[in-house]
Amino acid sequence: MSLKKEHSIFSAEILAVGTELLMGQIVNTNACYLAAQLRDLGIDSKYQSVVGDNETRIIDAIQHGLKRSDLLIITGGLGPTEDDISMSCAAKALGLNLAFDQDSWDRIVKHFTVSGREIMASNRKQAMLPTAATILPNDNGTAPGAYITAEFSGKTVHLALLPGPPSENTLMFNRYLKPILREMSGRTIESRFIRLIGIGESQAEARIHHLIRGQTDPTIAPYASEGEVMIRVTTASGLDEASLLEAESRLDQTIAAIRDEIGVYIYHIGEKNLYEVTVDLLKERGLTLAVAESCTAGLLSSKLGDVAGVSSVYLGSVVSYDNRVKTKLLGVRNETLEQRGACSRACAEEMATGVKTLLGSDYSIAITGIAGPDGGSAEKPVGTVHVAVAAPEGIYSHNFVISGNRLRVRTVAALWAANLLRRRILER
Amino acid sequence: MSLKKEHSIFSAEILAVGTELLMGQIVNTNACYLAAQLRDLGIDSKYQSVVGDNETRIIDAIQHGLKRSDLLIITGGLGPTEDDISMSCAAKALGLNLAFDQDSWDRIVKHFTVSGREIMASNRKQAMLPTAATILPNDNGTAPGAYITAEFSGKTVHLALLPGPPSENTLMFNRYLKPILREMSGRTIESRFIRLIGIGESQAEARIHHLIRGQTDPTIAPYASEGEVMIRVTTASGLDEASLLEAESRLDQTIAAIRDEIGVYIYHIGEKNLYEVTVDLLKERGLTLAVAESCTAGLLSSKLGDVAGVSSVYLGSVVSYDNRVKTKLLGVRNETLEQRGACSRACAEEMATGVKTLLGSDYSIAITGIAGPDGGSAEKPVGTVHVAVAAPEGIYSHNFVISGNRLRVRTVAALWAANLLRRRILER
Repeated sequence: MSLKKEHSIFSAEILAVGTELLMGQIVNTNACYLAAQLRDLGIDSKYQSVVGDNETRIIDAIQHGLKRSDLLIITGGLGPTEDDISMSCAAKALGLNLAFDQDSWDRIVKHFTVSGREIMASNRKQAMLPTAATILPNDNGTAPGAYITAEFSGKTVHLALLPGPPSENTLMFNRYLKPILREMSGRTIESRFIRLIGIGESQAEARIHHLIRGQTDPTIAPYASEGEVMIRVTTASGLDEASLLEAESRLDQTIAAIRDEIGVYIYHIGEKNLYEVTVDLLKERGLTLAVAESCTAGLLSSKLGDVAGVSSVYLGSVVSYDNRVKTKLLGVRNETLEQRGACSRACAEEMATGVKTLLGSDYSIAITGIAGPDGGSAEKPVGTVHVAVAAPEGIYSHNFVISGNRLRVRTVAALWAANLLRRRILER
Repeated sequence: MSLKKEHSIFSAEILAVGTELLMGQIVNTNACYLAAQLRDLGIDSKYQSVVGDNETRIIDAIQHGLKRSDLLIITGGLGPTEDDISMSCAAKALGLNLAFDQDSWDRIVKHFTVSGREIMASNRKQAMLPTAATILPNDNGTAPGAYITAEFSGKTVHLALLPGPPSENTLMFNRYLKPILREMSGRTIESRFIRLIGIGESQAEARIHHLIRGQTDPTIAPYASEGEVMIRVTTASGLDEASLLEAESRLDQTIAAIRDEIGVYIYHIGEKNLYEVTVDLLKERGLTLAVAESCTAGLLSSKLGDVAGVSSVYLGSVVSYDNRVKTKLLGVRNETLEQRGACSRACAEEMATGVKTLLGSDYSIAITGIAGPDGGSAEKPVGTVHVAVAAPEGIYSHNFVISGNRLRVRTVAALWAANLLRRRILER
């Protein structure tokens, strides 16, 4: 790339366009996602801003942004309706013209044809794109994006436009804009994610505090997410082979030091989540799985279903929300429900055994508990969850009290239940 | 309030301070929360911005914001550490001095005493507040906030500072800043949300285009979300009873006009989602539900589980990911799978009938399809989904081709399947 040295991108601003953001109807998750991505590309993200669907204010915001940063990423306002005007505002801000792009139009037509919907005259607007722009295709929707390099206010500036819906925004960034920006940045930030389960964020931080304090390159940053902890290890690198190898080696050394301290809690180093790791493990060993859920109501099953290719190991599940389903389908004994209750170790174990037999799987997971907001008692507070894993060699169970609201209790319960299975398979 | 007429607040900007936002480590939920609050106060929120913990950039952002809006709300940067400088930057931007505030200091000391933590010398900084500011107490933490009215750039401006942690931010806004702003605004914004399903955003807009064009009060704004469309109808009102009644009447008229055009697609006017509306319908009529899922893998069941109190109508589900579960548990015929395939109308109908019988429910929903990324063919592309509802009076089915990735296909399939049930119950 001859452009690289002349027009490197050092600083960036993320400008979100949309009255729904200013009205507080949606959270600006795109800004967060893109900011993290820019950081990984070694681009310093100095500002974020939001304006409504108003031509004057959008153009002002674009020009203000381009004056103070090398790169401006605009998200939103690329739809077919009248208030979607980001593309024309970008062209006006830079003094460019819009022209009809046949390729983009063909893609839009195809998108409508495939989904059997009728194309509207207003969609034609989405194929009107700035001349000299690199078109960024939209593989999850109709609106194409654009990447433009132009002269503005006496310097070379970079402008990118991405659609607002997060599924379209993320995919377009990753597939089409990120490769361009990587070249323009000329450096990269190499990161590895160490994923831990079974330890809290503050405990993890305390255990590796001496490493965090002592080290400036790589940097070590722990983050908590629901039910697990992630440690991000980061170093900067040039794009050439030798620099990248050196960066890898620095990361390896830091990770080894962290592993020495808290290795027992690490379930993966990389991009996979716990469900993906667990499914991989089942695949490797040729084992099948069935699930029985009560309070999580299909959430664990749905999380397994998120993993592409899970069908080779995952047979299915029974959501036994009603107690009659527990007894009739899963063979939970009436005495168990009467004497111990649905939220009990005995019930979880009987659910696990029942679904394993019913579906004929090698392993099974069962979850039963009190997700709230109602149903708690002094003895069994909201958040009490019993989990069981039925394995070929026997049955294992565990119970937790999970803090937080209904959604958090269910999310964490599903995760920790999957972790119990993972550990049983590993310890076999 | 004698101030009201002289210094009314019409427009606002929300400025978040924090490098963690620019790094993409946290999502700016405060901006969303405050924006919705301002909207309800009738204050036009025109901009949102984010800057890092840098004095020059913070002061620039404050002055830029105060030039273009009547009110600037700053969130974050009120903590005890060195990079928390919002309060001093605000004072500098307005040419005010900071002074030690004994009351605030007493509160900080008390907060530490109550929580049994040791007070740090750095906390003293949090009691240094602009002269002439109204102090906003922090009932969830140490950092006090401030509300300042000042002359800036030839006009009266309003500046408020709130802490960054959402629990402190929200509480301080509600208890201490909102009452001040309500007086200064003197009006409120009334909104209603019309929720539609079965029509796309562009079609919906085309059908009510003459209403959108013709009307400035109430305003009408359509938004798309995954698988459905929302139309927001908004009008401003004074705070007195008569004005509020008039506003309600304006909203009613506009909604009636929209209903005349696209009423058949409206499933709810208000805050409930489709699952909540469907569960309400089941409850009203005393009907029970069972679910059978293949490609959605528990997602529909999990969405039903999100609705608090669903247990009175929802019995449970069978996730028949593997075909053996379809035949063995749900009674899907082998011939159906061999001749028509798992992604077929016949399979969906047999799944629905099977789970209804198995769980003994009044109604059932079944979903089977190809979520992708693999498994598609020319005849049945990725996104092909068959849905069936078994009702006491018979069986109904429908098929869709849903565009997008695996997650979107599954999300939309679950939603549209629930909608088929809702319509069957209504049309009974």
